[in-house]
Amino acid sequence: MNKNRLEAFSDGVLAIIITIMVLEIKIPHGTDLAAIKPLIPVAFSYLFSFIYVGIYWNNHHHLFQVVKGVNGAILWGNLHLLFWISLLPFATGWIDENHFASLPVAFYGFILAMCGLAWKILTLIIMKHEGTDSRLRQVYKSDYKQYLSVVGYVSGIALSFYYPAVSVLMYVLVALIWFIPDRRIERNLKNH
Amino acid sequence: MNKNRLEAFSDGVLAIIITIMVLEIKIPHGTDLAAIKPLIPVAFSYLFSFIYVGIYWNNHHHLFQVVKGVNGAILWGNLHLLFWISLLPFATGWIDENHFASLPVAFYGFILAMCGLAWKILTLIIMKHEGTDSRLRQVYKSDYKQYLSVVGYVSGIALSFYYPAVSVLMYVLVALIWFIPDRRIERNLKNH
Amino acid sequence: MNKNRLEAFSDGVLAIIITIMVLEIKIPHGTDLAAIKPLIPVAFSYLFSFIYVGIYWNNHHHLFQVVKGVNGAILWGNLHLLFWISLLPFATGWIDENHFASLPVAFYGFILAMCGLAWKILTLIIMKHEGTDSRLRQVYKSDYKQYLSVVGYVSGIALSFYYPAVSVLMYVLVALIWFIPDRRIERNLKNH
Amino acid sequence: MNKNRLEAFSDGVLAIIITIMVLEIKIPHGTDLAAIKPLIPVAFSYLFSFIYVGIYWNNHHHLFQVVKGVNGAILWGNLHLLFWISLLPFATGWIDENHFASLPVAFYGFILAMCGLAWKILTLIIMKHEGTDSRLRQVYKSDYKQYLSVVGYVSGIALSFYYPAVSVLMYVLVALIWFIPDRRIERNLKNH
Repeated sequence: MNKNRLEAFSDGVLAIIITIMVLEIKIPHGTDLAAIKPLIPVAFSYLFSFIYVGIYWNNHHHLFQVVKGVNGAILWGNLHLLFWISLLPFATGWIDENHFASLPVAFYGFILAMCGLAWKILTLIIMKHEGTDSRLRQVYKSDYKQYLSVVGYVSGIALSFYYPAVSVLMYVLVALIWFIPDRRIERNLKNH
Repeated sequence: MNKNRLEAFSDGVLAIIITIMVLEIKIPHGTDLAAIKPLIPVAFSYLFSFIYVGIYWNNHHHLFQVVKGVNGAILWGNLHLLFWISLLPFATGWIDENHFASLPVAFYGFILAMCGLAWKILTLIIMKHEGTDSRLRQVYKSDYKQYLSVVGYVSGIALSFYYPAVSVLMYVLVALIWFIPDRRIERNLKNH
Repeated sequence: MNKNRLEAFSDGVLAIIITIMVLEIKIPHGTDLAAIKPLIPVAFSYLFSFIYVGIYWNNHHHLFQVVKGVNGAILWGNLHLLFWISLLPFATGWIDENHFASLPVAFYGFILAMCGLAWKILTLIIMKHEGTDSRLRQVYKSDYKQYLSVVGYVSGIALSFYYPAVSVLMYVLVALIWFIPDRRIERNLKNH
Repeated sequence: MNKNRLEAFSDGVLAIIITIMVLEIKIPHGTDLAAIKPLIPVAFSYLFSFIYVGIYWNNHHHLFQVVKGVNGAILWGNLHLLFWISLLPFATGWIDENHFASLPVAFYGFILAMCGLAWKILTLIIMKHEGTDSRLRQVYKSDYKQYLSVVGYVSGIALSFYYPAVSVLMYVLVALIWFIPDRRIERNLKNH
């Protein structure tokens, strides 16, 4: 079965998730700087959430470039990933509303870790479906990004109860290593 | 007429329906566990609604893999199905808000039954349009899943006024038999 | 230029418009019939709006089946149509909230008439772009549906200040003649 | 890598942005003209925001007609553009709510300028990716529209603290020069 609808549906869901938070930026009644001051954390929250969902969209985009077909298991693996990503705006907003309090920071790390886990599961289901000549398997020989992410998320959650600012730094570092979508996929596509 | 736009429009509508409920998870002001406690039923409601809409999306995906073309009647049959599915988040939320009270549970069963009926009607319209060499007709020789669903929904609605928890169990059982999208379609596609 | 993106963007906008009103059906706190009674008009409003947007989607779907390419003018003609359709949920809701008062009924007729006008303009732009061998021109030899619609809308608006219920009946009659998407298009596609 | 998903995702995000503001037009409780009077500025705000997002969609549509493939940098350049466009409904609404006060008008010019900058960056990334035989490079020999836009936005922002109405006029003029999507692209596509 072809992958078109999985991509189209994911694009629709991610388009909604990425723009949800802009609805939270309520139009202020005043016209001076004081009127928009309370909106600044909401705007940063939107920006940060936009970037993180953007990272997932970009990597999802690259991932499915090397996938040929889909089956029922891949559809569910993908829905599972979308479910966790859909909680990112909420998790980002909760941190933001509370100036980096411990529990929201830990919760944010948990959602990020579940997104990462769902990503890992999805790639495993795809490789299993595609068998030994899986293009993804060739590309994903090493998984260093995923191991680094686990370290980042786990340490981030653990540290959130002592130094929540450091946790957020860990999450940002993990985001950075995924910011550039997989170049190995781009190279693989060029060579075939 | 080709089926591309019917699929794209359905993907758009289902993407909105599946993510609507996440908007209901309002960011709490507190930062302790007590602050998120009232969100737990909303979150479960979202999860359950997500899974049910996901089941419909997956089965819709598989269904249209074996459909070649569409006509006006199929467009309306599909819109009819989308209408009932769009009421699922509301129905799920009403159950949830009221700890499995009888009327919400019966209402939920009614919406699920209407979704099932709309599904049945849609498949009949497709088969009629495709005539005797309908691929769907070959695949859908037996309809055991649909008969079981009717039993599940009717008994669920009837029981809701006595044992609403049992009704919900019936709905979960019906969901389970549809969880794996039709393997007969996957087999049929592989053999052609 | 190919028409794919115009179709995809229209599908996205119409998917949002068709599901907007379901957000208005707020989950009630009670669990008896009295609790859902205030929701019945909202639900009917949603149903009616869903059908009308559905009619436009179906006809839009058929229209672009016979369109080969697009240009800047067609893009704007299409956006103009989407703008007026996007006001349908609001117009439907206003009627409904006020038990068929005159002004809302007249306003609703106005929005419907503007949708119809935008439709007409769009088809004219397409025919102009396609020149003399326009497939749409062959199909649309007679325009009886559009003339009937004008009669329906104008008389509906005029009557709204005396017999608003009759106006609504006129709108329903116009909807009925557009309910079945253009069979001439289906025939034309079959013959080529 | 093909551009299909970038287009589909952009269509989804822009479809949401263009219809967001219609949610702000709340159904009034009254049925006389006084009841809809407070909605008139909101409706104009919606119209203006619809047109501006429409202009961006049309130009985005034409731009990607001459783009063959995408890479990670183009995906991010596109997301960056979508981010700024997503703030247009908010910026339009803020002006409108405050009868052309200085700060909202300056802010609106800032968002428009950032959209324009993001557009410029996106086209540069595309040209760099496509190398010397870039079709876009041939089409975009002169950039007069972009230079005029910079003049319009900068002078608009500067004037907003003295004559905010003149600033809005400047923004409208910039919108007008972009209203007709690039004819050079249409010509280029016809000749190849």
